[in-house]
Amino acid sequence: MRLYPVILAGGRGERFWPLSRRARPKQLLPLLSERSMLADTLARLDPLAPASSAWILTARDLAPAVRASVPGVPELQVVGEPTGKNTAPAIALASWWLHGSGADAVAVVLPSDHRIEPADAFRKDLEEAAQTALERNAIVVIGIPANRPETGYGYIEAGEPVGSRARRVAAFREKPDRETAARYVASGHLWNAGMFVFTPEVMLKEIRAHAPEIASALEGMPAPGEPGSEQALERYYAAVPSISIDYAVMERTRNALVLPARFGWDDLGSWAALGGDAQDAAGNTVRGRALLEDVSGSVVFADEGLVAAVGVRDLVIVRTGDVTLVCPRERAQDVRALVERLRREADGSALL
Amino acid sequence: MRLYPVILAGGRGERFWPLSRRARPKQLLPLLSERSMLADTLARLDPLAPASSAWILTARDLAPAVRASVPGVPELQVVGEPTGKNTAPAIALASWWLHGSGADAVAVVLPSDHRIEPADAFRKDLEEAAQTALERNAIVVIGIPANRPETGYGYIEAGEPVGSRARRVAAFREKPDRETAARYVASGHLWNAGMFVFTPEVMLKEIRAHAPEIASALEGMPAPGEPGSEQALERYYAAVPSISIDYAVMERTRNALVLPARFGWDDLGSWAALGGDAQDAAGNTVRGRALLEDVSGSVVFADEGLVAAVGVRDLVIVRTGDVTLVCPRERAQDVRALVERLRREADGSALL
Repeated sequence: MRLYPVILAGGRGERFWPLSRRARPKQLLPLLSERSMLADTLARLDPLAPASSAWILTARDLAPAVRASVPGVPELQVVGEPTGKNTAPAIALASWWLHGSGADAVAVVLPSDHRIEPADAFRKDLEEAAQTALERNAIVVIGIPANRPETGYGYIEAGEPVGSRARRVAAFREKPDRETAARYVASGHLWNAGMFVFTPEVMLKEIRAHAPEIASALEGMPAPGEPGSEQALERYYAAVPSISIDYAVMERTRNALVLPARFGWDDLGSWAALGGDAQDAAGNTVRGRALLEDVSGSVVFADEGLVAAVGVRDLVIVRTGDVTLVCPRERAQDVRALVERLRREADGSALL
Repeated sequence: MRLYPVILAGGRGERFWPLSRRARPKQLLPLLSERSMLADTLARLDPLAPASSAWILTARDLAPAVRASVPGVPELQVVGEPTGKNTAPAIALASWWLHGSGADAVAVVLPSDHRIEPADAFRKDLEEAAQTALERNAIVVIGIPANRPETGYGYIEAGEPVGSRARRVAAFREKPDRETAARYVASGHLWNAGMFVFTPEVMLKEIRAHAPEIASALEGMPAPGEPGSEQALERYYAAVPSISIDYAVMERTRNALVLPARFGWDDLGSWAALGGDAQDAAGNTVRGRALLEDVSGSVVFADEGLVAAVGVRDLVIVRTGDVTLVCPRERAQDVRALVERLRREADGSALL
C-alpha cells in the first residue's frame, strides 16, 4: 500500500487577519509551529507518506509561496489552479494524474490548515481508512465525532458497520441550524472535515458516474510538465463546474464509508481557536516575542516586534509588520467585519 | 515687559513607553498634537513670548533632537546639560545668562511636557504673574487649584493676598500621603506644577542667599558660544549639587508669591491621562491610523501602521515600529513594571 496525499491548499480565509493576507492565507501561516500549517500537514504524514508522494492543489498566484513552504514536494506536483472551482475538479484532477500508480496506490485528500493531534493516532486512522478503501473499493471519509452543536460544519450520519470500525454512510447532512445540530450531536453524527481516502480508480469511476462534465474535461489531460499541460489545465478549469466533492460525489455515491476519527481535530476557525492549546500557567497561548504581566486566557501572536501587555484577560492580540489587532477571544469572528471595512476604505486594501 | 521662557526639558519618563524611549522622552513626543509636547509648549506662549526668546535646558544627548523639534529657538539657547542636576542649577544658569537683559525682562520657568489649555487663559495668567514678579520683586509660582487628593504632587499653602489675585506662599508641602492630601484639597491648597516667574536679578539674589555653592559656580560663566563656554559648562555641572529649585530656594525664601491658575492643567502622567480629551462619541482618544469596531473609552495610539480593535473597553493600545502595548487604562501606571522587566532581559534594552 502506498499513500498519495492530495492536499487542498487554495483557501483565502480572512479570519486570521492581520496575519493572513490575500498573498499569505492561513495554510501558509505558522500558526501552530514555526512552519506553515501546510508544512505541518505534510510533516504529520511522515513516515506514512513522504512529501515526495504528495500533490498540492492551490491557487495559481499562491503556487510559488506554496512551493517555498514545502520544498520536499516536487515542483510539478504543486498545481496552481487558474480559477478556484471548489473541491471536486481538484480531487478529480489529482485522481486522474494518480491513476495508474499501481494497484496498491491510495489517495488521501486532506485540507491544508487544520489542527490534528496526536499525529500517530491520525496516521493509524489514515492507514486503516486506506486499507478499508482498498479492500472495499470504497471512498472512505474520516468522520470527526461531533461534541458540540456546531452550525458551521457538514454532518455525516453513519449507518451499518463494515469491518471493524468503518460504517456505511447513511447520509451527508449540510450545515444545520442549531437545533438540528444538537439533534445530530445527540444521535452520534460525525463532522465531515474534508478528509477522503480512496483509490484513484474508484474516484474516477464515481466522477464518471456522478459528475460527467468533470470526467469528460479530464479526458486526454497530460501530466504536469508534459507538452501542452499548461494549456490543458486552463481548458480544464474553464470547462468544469464549480462544485464540491461532497455535492458532486459523496452525497450521490452508494460507495461511501465513514471511519470515526480517534485523533483530536480543530479547523482553527479563528484566532480564538489558537487558545485551545494554552501554553503557560495563566492559560495564554503565545507565539513570537511577548512581555506579559498579569495576563491570562489570551492569545498573543507577535509576527514581528514585541507585544507587551498588562492586566488583560481573554484577549486576542496580534502584531504584524503593519497592523496590530486587539479583540476579546469571544469576538474573534468579528475580525471579518474589520476586513470588510478595510476593503471599503480608500487605502485599506494594502492591508488585506 | 519682555518674557523669556526657560523650558526644562531634561526628562526621561518611562510612562509613555513604548512610544517614549531614552532617546525620545515624553517632551519630544507628539502626544497632544502633530508636533512634540515641547513644541506645543512654545507655541502656547505665542504671541506673549516668541520662540526666539526661549531658553531650553535638556540632557546633552537630547539636545540635537530638541533643536530639531523647535527650530525657532536659536541653537545656542538649547543647552545640553552634561549631567542632570535637578532644577536649581538649570534655573540658576538660565537666570545668569538672562541677567542684564533689561529692567523689564522676566524669566518664565516651565516644564516641557504638560497639557495646558486654553492657551489664552494660560498666557493671561503668565502675564499677570510676570507683572506681579516685576512689581513686587518676587518669585511667583503658578499654583494649580487641587481638585483631588493626588499624592504624586507637591502642594502650596497660600497665605495673605498681595494685590488682586496673588497671595503670599505660606508653605511648600512635599508630596503627602493620601489622608494629608485630602486635607490639603479641603483647605484650598494648590499644586506646585513647576512653573516659576521672576526677574533674573531676583532669582540670582535668592540663589546667592540660599544656594551659595550654585552661586559661586556661576561666577565668570561665559554665555553659550563664547570662548571656553563648553568647558565652563562642564565645570559648572561638575561643581553644583543636584537639588530642586523647590528645595534650594522656594522653601527657604520669604519672597515667594503664588498665583492660582485659571487654566486647565494635567501633567500627563501616563497613557491613561490622554483619555482626558476624548475625541469620538464613544469616548475614545485616537492618534494615528485606527480601525475601531464597538470600542469605547480607549486610548489608541498608532505611531506607525494600523491599530484594529473590536469589542474592547477602556483599554490603552499603543503601536510603535517595534512594540505593541495593551493594558487597561486603569493599569497604565504599570507600564513601568514592563519597562523594568525589559531592562533585566538580555536583549530588552534595545526596546527602551
